[in-house]
Amino acid sequence: MSQCQALLLSSSNCHGYSMLEFAKEEICNLLEKNNIEDLLFVPYAQKNYDEYTKKIKEVIDPWGFSVTGLHTYAEPVEAVYDAQAIFIGGGNTFMLLNTLYSQNLVSVIRERVLEGKLVYIGSSAGTNVATKSIHTTNDMPIIYPPSFEAIGLVPFNINPHYIDKSDNETHKGETRDQRIGEYMEMPHAKSVLGLKEGSMLHVDGGSLVLKGVAGAVLFQKGGKKTEYSAGDNVSFLLEE
Amino acid sequence: MSQCQALLLSSSNCHGYSMLEFAKEEICNLLEKNNIEDLLFVPYAQKNYDEYTKKIKEVIDPWGFSVTGLHTYAEPVEAVYDAQAIFIGGGNTFMLLNTLYSQNLVSVIRERVLEGKLVYIGSSAGTNVATKSIHTTNDMPIIYPPSFEAIGLVPFNINPHYIDKSDNETHKGETRDQRIGEYMEMPHAKSVLGLKEGSMLHVDGGSLVLKGVAGAVLFQKGGKKTEYSAGDNVSFLLEE
Ligand SMILES: [Ca+2]
Ligand SMILES: [Ca+2]
Repeated sequence: MSQCQALLLSSSNCHGYSMLEFAKEEICNLLEKNNIEDLLFVPYAQKNYDEYTKKIKEVIDPWGFSVTGLHTYAEPVEAVYDAQAIFIGGGNTFMLLNTLYSQNLVSVIRERVLEGKLVYIGSSAGTNVATKSIHTTNDMPIIYPPSFEAIGLVPFNINPHYIDKSDNETHKGETRDQRIGEYMEMPHAKSVLGLKEGSMLHVDGGSLVLKGVAGAVLFQKGGKKTEYSAGDNVSFLLEE
Repeated sequence: MSQCQALLLSSSNCHGYSMLEFAKEEICNLLEKNNIEDLLFVPYAQKNYDEYTKKIKEVIDPWGFSVTGLHTYAEPVEAVYDAQAIFIGGGNTFMLLNTLYSQNLVSVIRERVLEGKLVYIGSSAGTNVATKSIHTTNDMPIIYPPSFEAIGLVPFNINPHYIDKSDNETHKGETRDQRIGEYMEMPHAKSVLGLKEGSMLHVDGGSLVLKGVAGAVLFQKGGKKTEYSAGDNVSFLLEE
């Protein structure tokens, strides 16, 4: 059984809350339970690493932790190896995954987290890269990564910022469900957990539980679509 | 000077019109001007090739042309080589480009169109693959293509189904302009022409003119954003 401890957030922002506020209790509990005081922040999904790290630091340091940016270390692989917890923030999933590959970080993060040596927190793009692949990101493919396969802490896919409404009634672009449906028809498709903004998935070894202030929708092969609420146990997804 | 003749549609569907109706006059004019009676349809962006081809055939055959599906030919490269006009339909851009590469069609289409031997009509995903690259598709990356570089009939990018409204006021996912903005910050970024639904770009050798019942928005390096209307000449984009 994997020793993985992870918190995969749909997004950092949620209507009616300040940044990360809806997830504060879960993040604090997870870090405190593991006696962790330092959090290594990975700002690769956005362009300005210093500014992005500062923004996250201003939110999380007051909770009693110390945030540093991975980009400030000369040896990122070593910094990850030495860390007890990382937080990979949102932005563009393609840029994030491309940089994780170019810095040789994909396998070291996977190994350390699965061994139980590194606690993983991800949000939005940082949640996409934690899963099997980035096939179900909402982001534009602004750069070509060496693979769409990702860190693979869980054997299925997540669609963050999940929303089931269409853009508007007169626009003919696909809805989110149509987009996910296109993926589900591929031979290589895995189940897709659509996390609504405000929801998150707590991975604790073999246990998967939905947390937060919103629910999730699970898409499975054959067109099956199931609604879940915060508090629901979805550990069966590890059996995929 | 390239002999390219192409019509790049934002989409096949436009609010208030039946399928392709808003583009009927332009499509008919382009084919008739070149004395073309047969149209080779490329259904690779969707899953069911027969059904998709039938749908397009039911719309276009009554206009006085004969549509056949490229998937019905044993040798797709030869079929393209022998054709006078192709229409590449919409669906998923990643699946479309991946199939064009696996069938060795990218370079033969490019060469025949640029030589003036093949008229190109594209819609949505079929418009994305006609441009420099698919970096600005709206589609989900459901399959990993060998490259994001595409047919390259024009040296810039297009965002089809362009819309400048956000999904809704409480959703925190990025707007279309933010997504395109992320691309524009990349060192490899080209200008992006956002074609609103109902608009199309007519490429006639060195002339680029907007057509249809809606306009377009041009995104350029440095944050410049310019609105254009049907009838406007944007040939300067070929100088990029
Ligand atoms: Ca994003
Ligand atoms: Ca599409």
